Amino acid sequence: MQEQNLVQDSERIDQLYSQDVQIIQSNEVFSFSLDAVLLANFVPETKKTRLKVVDMCAGNGAVGLFLHAKIPSHFIEVEIQPRLADMAQRSIKLNNLDKQYSVLNMDIADLYTEIKKDSVDIVLCNPPYFTNLPDSTKNPNEYLAIARHEIKTNLEGVVSVMSGLLKTNGRGYMVHRPDRLADIFAMISKYRMAPKRIQFIHPKPGREANMVLIEVIRDGHAGGVRIVEPIIVSDENNEYTPQVKEMLYGK
Amino acid sequence: MQEQNLVQDSERIDQLYSQDVQIIQSNEVFSFSLDAVLLANFVPETKKTRLKVVDMCAGNGAVGLFLHAKIPSHFIEVEIQPRLADMAQRSIKLNNLDKQYSVLNMDIADLYTEIKKDSVDIVLCNPPYFTNLPDSTKNPNEYLAIARHEIKTNLEGVVSVMSGLLKTNGRGYMVHRPDRLADIFAMISKYRMAPKRIQFIHPKPGREANMVLIEVIRDGHAGGVRIVEPIIVSDENNEYTPQVKEMLYGK
Repeated sequence: MQEQNLVQDSERIDQLYSQDVQIIQSNEVFSFSLDAVLLANFVPETKKTRLKVVDMCAGNGAVGLFLHAKIPSHFIEVEIQPRLADMAQRSIKLNNLDKQYSVLNMDIADLYTEIKKDSVDIVLCNPPYFTNLPDSTKNPNEYLAIARHEIKTNLEGVVSVMSGLLKTNGRGYMVHRPDRLADIFAMISKYRMAPKRIQFIHPKPGREANMVLIEVIRDGHAGGVRIVEPIIVSDENNEYTPQVKEMLYGK
Repeated sequence: MQEQNLVQDSERIDQLYSQDVQIIQSNEVFSFSLDAVLLANFVPETKKTRLKVVDMCAGNGAVGLFLHAKIPSHFIEVEIQPRLADMAQRSIKLNNLDKQYSVLNMDIADLYTEIKKDSVDIVLCNPPYFTNLPDSTKNPNEYLAIARHEIKTNLEGVVSVMSGLLKTNGRGYMVHRPDRLADIFAMISKYRMAPKRIQFIHPKPGREANMVLIEVIRDGHAGGVRIVEPIIVSDENNEYTPQVKEMLYGK
């Protein structure tokens, strides 16, 4: 597919070298960031080709697209904002992945009209992190505000739909802020899921975690959560650590 | 106080050099281990002298005694097993800390007869970690079985009493197993507390966490938990890391 037909004014193409995939980005609306790379890295590889994978809050489709080789199955990218859903669709074309991916431009609250309950093997979610308090400072750019603040959905919204979509023993993968860990655990439990594996992300050595990656299982029994080795993003000189470099640029 | 009057047959004196404190130990009944050192290290220093501190599940009194200088206030050590409570009492004498410490040999379930509800500033707890399933392999030594398995109390027991004892905004500090994190969060929330600070302990680089330290606040609002830098106990050659060496031996 020719790039010039797919990329609009104000947009650019970023490449995730480690996964050999190109993503159409725009600072005007939304650009994937390290969160998306870390979430994709957290999801285990599989050889299964008949899994049904849903990326909720897909944005420009980055998380799902990063996994095209690790999960050789069908992906549905769900995004509420038309312009972002359109960018996701064009990134899929750009990578010649039309057969593996489809895009739904809709609110996750309406998703059961398109995807049956209890039918999905893997749900991915990089949701808005910040509660939408009346006095919270939001980005004046509405695209970015919706991606970052719980305006169109909230934690309970994403966790309840994640649970509703997943089959028994299906797996959900979410990236969020560690300061909301107590809420996240409460919601996971409320919607009949259990945390199975957690990885904390620290920006530098000695610093508190600023992201958390969580794997949950639908109808899994409580207890037994594993806290795997944390990831340190940068060293003292603000250079990416070898582990993060490999995620971005490959071996 | 002369050592020979205080130490019985089968007992020995171990020293925590970093805190300049001696603890009467016995492999027959219970010896403090790294858990106790890590829990004491996790508790912040204070200059306040009028705090009321309760160490529930005190065992031979190690956690409380390790904090004699960091918290120059009155400690009540609560231990259900008479022989361990007696060892705690003798360790207090051995360190000439009789004025700062007292021991209650009783079940925490009966504690409100001795300590008023909503009256305590700091509660410490190194509880039994393992659920007492009928088929779980327990130590044939009853002293050790009670210290490790939820025979005389359980997670709900310790969390409910921790909450009952604490004043509003009082702080609780607990060490536990990370695989029970979901249960721990559920219980903390059920008994009107909130997690405020968490530190995971990994035995070696690259390994999953095998301990978790949790600071909770009574009646604190949910959200806002901080995940501080994890502790790695040993390096690849099974040597303690510098951080742990300092906890044990001082600077």
